[in-house]
Amino acid sequence: MTERTRHRRLRENGSVRKTDLDAVLAAGFVCHLGVVVDGSPMVVPTCYGATADTLYLHGSVASRSLRSPGAEVCVTVTHVDGLILARSVFEHGIAYRSAMVYGVPRVLDGEEKLEGLRVLTEQCAPGQWDYARRPSRKELAATTLLALDLDEASVKIADGPPDDGDGPDAELGLWAGNVPFRTVSGAPLPAPDLDSAVQLPAHIAALGSRSDVHGAGPGR
Amino acid sequence: MTERTRHRRLRENGSVRKTDLDAVLAAGFVCHLGVVVDGSPMVVPTCYGATADTLYLHGSVASRSLRSPGAEVCVTVTHVDGLILARSVFEHGIAYRSAMVYGVPRVLDGEEKLEGLRVLTEQCAPGQWDYARRPSRKELAATTLLALDLDEASVKIADGPPDDGDGPDAELGLWAGNVPFRTVSGAPLPAPDLDSAVQLPAHIAALGSRSDVHGAGPGR
Repeated sequence: MTERTRHRRLRENGSVRKTDLDAVLAAGFVCHLGVVVDGSPMVVPTCYGATADTLYLHGSVASRSLRSPGAEVCVTVTHVDGLILARSVFEHGIAYRSAMVYGVPRVLDGEEKLEGLRVLTEQCAPGQWDYARRPSRKELAATTLLALDLDEASVKIADGPPDDGDGPDAELGLWAGNVPFRTVSGAPLPAPDLDSAVQLPAHIAALGSRSDVHGAGPGR
Repeated sequence: MTERTRHRRLRENGSVRKTDLDAVLAAGFVCHLGVVVDGSPMVVPTCYGATADTLYLHGSVASRSLRSPGAEVCVTVTHVDGLILARSVFEHGIAYRSAMVYGVPRVLDGEEKLEGLRVLTEQCAPGQWDYARRPSRKELAATTLLALDLDEASVKIADGPPDDGDGPDAELGLWAGNVPFRTVSGAPLPAPDLDSAVQLPAHIAALGSRSDVHGAGPGR
């Protein structure tokens, strides 16, 4: 834990536990990658895959900002779990889980690049690495893949219920509680030019019937 | 449009149309706020509300980084709409809508602060500004609210279907298409200490039965 990953707000449940970090990272596949470009911040969404010690990031979107070696990044993954509705506007909040990872990413090459791409692909769409055609040498060269160590990271988890039930606001007679959100996936839509003889494989059918996925595979 | 909001990638559908920007901002209420702290990027999730020309941001989370006046920020809003599954791993992608807004935020005070908080509250939880107890003077003082002009912004929209159906990969006999995602809200959960005589108001019941909300109110 460094100075910037120490939590400053009391209301939120800050955590530096590795199991919390792993759980938040495993529950999604889209992060926000922050870089500094000419002194200004730039935040781009991109997809990722995580192992126990490494975050792999698709880097093409931010490639122009990652030209300078040694440039630090901040990667943030957030899952919005719902609304926390209190008696007072002031006590309202968002229920969420979020992870922040700081570090200097390595631009991958060779075997590690292929392995990183496998991890990333499997996190986004479990089963596709073994099913789809794998990248050619040329396609690999056209892909920017970044690896970030999970050494400097923190997690914030905010959930309900609202905590203004023991003060004067409780006498207002107003409803208070949580409205939960979840992300669900729907039936896979075949590409218009797909040969009708091609069957929907089981692993893609499974991708289309998930609840509270945030991009995670079944059972995670 | 500035140099950095000009789109560089061909595959994604970059847009600087105001209607696209408005639609992406209206479809959510959580953004990622990027700032530069001691030369390093920091990306924090926070909630927002948008009008035609202004983005209002809850700034407490990033307050320590916004002490220096004139500091630029990048605010990114992303909605993940699904997976684009192609015949090749290389052509895989995420279906998403994303908006990036650059600028130097103003820290609000007085009437504009109250109005910004109203816009933000109504975007997160439509109906709550008129229902819940509004902020006291002391609570307002304890809230940091930022306003960012929507002058420098861009939008990216990526959707399906995968476009490798007209090449040699189409002969592989592999399934290709999209797996759609949507965010749904569930039944409101009363706070454990809520007086059982308090009825669930209609606007909160409506918050709990939304599909593809991304935090937007019904009908948006």
